[in-house]
Amino acid sequence: MSSERTEIEKLGEFGLIEHLTQNFEIQNASTILAIGDDAAVIDHFGKQTVISTDMLIEGVHFDLMYTPLKHLGYKSVVVNLSDIYAMNAQPTHITISIGFSNRFSLEALDEFYEGVNIACEKYGVDLIGGDTSSSQKGLIISVTALGEVTPDTYVKRSTAESGDLICVSGDLGAAFLGLTLMEREKNIFIENPQVQPNLENEDYIVGRLLKPEARKDIIDLLEEMKVVPTAMMDISDGLSSELLHLCKQSDLGCRIYEDKIPLNEATKAAAFKFGLDPTVCALNGGEDYELIFTMKQTDYDKITMQEEISVIGYMCDRGEGAKLITKGNNLFDITAQGWNAFAK
Amino acid sequence: MSSERTEIEKLGEFGLIEHLTQNFEIQNASTILAIGDDAAVIDHFGKQTVISTDMLIEGVHFDLMYTPLKHLGYKSVVVNLSDIYAMNAQPTHITISIGFSNRFSLEALDEFYEGVNIACEKYGVDLIGGDTSSSQKGLIISVTALGEVTPDTYVKRSTAESGDLICVSGDLGAAFLGLTLMEREKNIFIENPQVQPNLENEDYIVGRLLKPEARKDIIDLLEEMKVVPTAMMDISDGLSSELLHLCKQSDLGCRIYEDKIPLNEATKAAAFKFGLDPTVCALNGGEDYELIFTMKQTDYDKITMQEEISVIGYMCDRGEGAKLITKGNNLFDITAQGWNAFAK
Repeated sequence: MSSERTEIEKLGEFGLIEHLTQNFEIQNASTILAIGDDAAVIDHFGKQTVISTDMLIEGVHFDLMYTPLKHLGYKSVVVNLSDIYAMNAQPTHITISIGFSNRFSLEALDEFYEGVNIACEKYGVDLIGGDTSSSQKGLIISVTALGEVTPDTYVKRSTAESGDLICVSGDLGAAFLGLTLMEREKNIFIENPQVQPNLENEDYIVGRLLKPEARKDIIDLLEEMKVVPTAMMDISDGLSSELLHLCKQSDLGCRIYEDKIPLNEATKAAAFKFGLDPTVCALNGGEDYELIFTMKQTDYDKITMQEEISVIGYMCDRGEGAKLITKGNNLFDITAQGWNAFAK
Repeated sequence: MSSERTEIEKLGEFGLIEHLTQNFEIQNASTILAIGDDAAVIDHFGKQTVISTDMLIEGVHFDLMYTPLKHLGYKSVVVNLSDIYAMNAQPTHITISIGFSNRFSLEALDEFYEGVNIACEKYGVDLIGGDTSSSQKGLIISVTALGEVTPDTYVKRSTAESGDLICVSGDLGAAFLGLTLMEREKNIFIENPQVQPNLENEDYIVGRLLKPEARKDIIDLLEEMKVVPTAMMDISDGLSSELLHLCKQSDLGCRIYEDKIPLNEATKAAAFKFGLDPTVCALNGGEDYELIFTMKQTDYDKITMQEEISVIGYMCDRGEGAKLITKGNNLFDITAQGWNAFAK
């Protein structure tokens, strides 16, 4: 961050918006009118519009003590795009509103918007609106993402069928271990500010926490391979929680195999160091922003060569329940212990 | 508000969303998929989509000491719809995200969502998504509104021409006087809780503050009369601020007549009581949520019989500046002293 400090009140609200959004370039022909009027105008040219929104609050969803603002800007966009991809749609536009207390300088907001801009460029989405406001305490971020989909090709959570295979992208549990690590280092720092943080060899888990990516590549790959998921969602609250959503909304049960849950080596090493079970981190951690989807068994051959897709189990009838089959061949009920902002 | 108190953590996040949204009925055929998945899906059937978003923060934008939660829910929706109408579009969908501290009970949130639902029903919009979250302090509300417009019939701020007439709907300044009154009563109450609030005969200004309406009727009327505004926006920050936006974005100047600014009798009476100039309240107050628009002089005859539309002046060349012509025929520069969340 720059060492300069410019007070935001110097610019006023409209000067601030102009300043923050001056480097954003429009990338979609559908963006008819972007920032600067009462509302933005978009034309999806006969496609259907997909919309998702998220609110991120300092002290609840992120800790600025170990979250660089540029990463936070990037992540705020990505977590919303992840929801759009989870509908089998392509994101096209975002709006972003922020509320911030007077401890934030213009330079701090610039860092945040730089991250937003990098995410917009990487994923090809246009920033088309938003709101800036003061807050009494801390930083508040609200992002709405819009995407487009060829009519009726979106994929819901409720349309899995018994016998469908359950697939997940990438690997799970790393962001939770990154969070565990950062919280530990934060507490050490609070107790003794002389101690340098020990993040050696932890790039992977820290990166997964601070700069997650949305799996556009998986959506593109599925289209290329002509695999249409029967149901899909993103994994933001932990695998257990999302499996139960798929089961509940599709009125089914499921079986997943512990030894099929994809774990990165860095995740296993970090879990070992913290005395945690990496399977539990994958099941009950959160913020992986991977995709979970179901597909017909007849599509299995199409994906066997894809390293980024793991088949972890199958959907079954509701009466059979949602269960994990352990490495020792025991059956455990899957329960949602995922992130719950209200159980505090 | 009900005297019961149900802690929100009992429901969990998904139980809470289900509970809060159970009474919302879908009103638009374009709503293909609403709440309950990663994202909502809408189909505008060849129309263009208009999008606006606003963030409202307790202690900055509203004071729960005199704002009933039901009114706040209603107003949160209406202020966003006002932006959609200001584009000459019809609102169709909203998403709403709220962050709230643990001082809010389920019954309190129910009050808020009841207001949201009443606004949705009145204006024919569907709630299609959102987010619920805990906050460290106070209530935070973020609303995104979507609307639709026949391709390329939206009206921007930047397209007024020199000589166009400037029109405003309804009357101005009342919400600011409502705010002045409520702040006064609040301070009296803080100093002496025995004193009953004196709001007699102040229904109009208090109503304009706590339960504003968006001017759908004006948009419908303009269409009926075949008047296409050359530029339009809503009046949320005071007439002065909005006039300067129109001038800047259209690269023009303007002249408005003090005696043409529409003021309600109740506004004049309240201004007199507080020793304020009602013209200044209209110019520099805010939250009127009326529409300001420009139109060709040739359309003048079409609107002369409309009580809800006042012609207050005209656009002129940029070099002539933006000026108010007083009742005494003096010229004053119009300056933006409107609401500025950062100048505190």
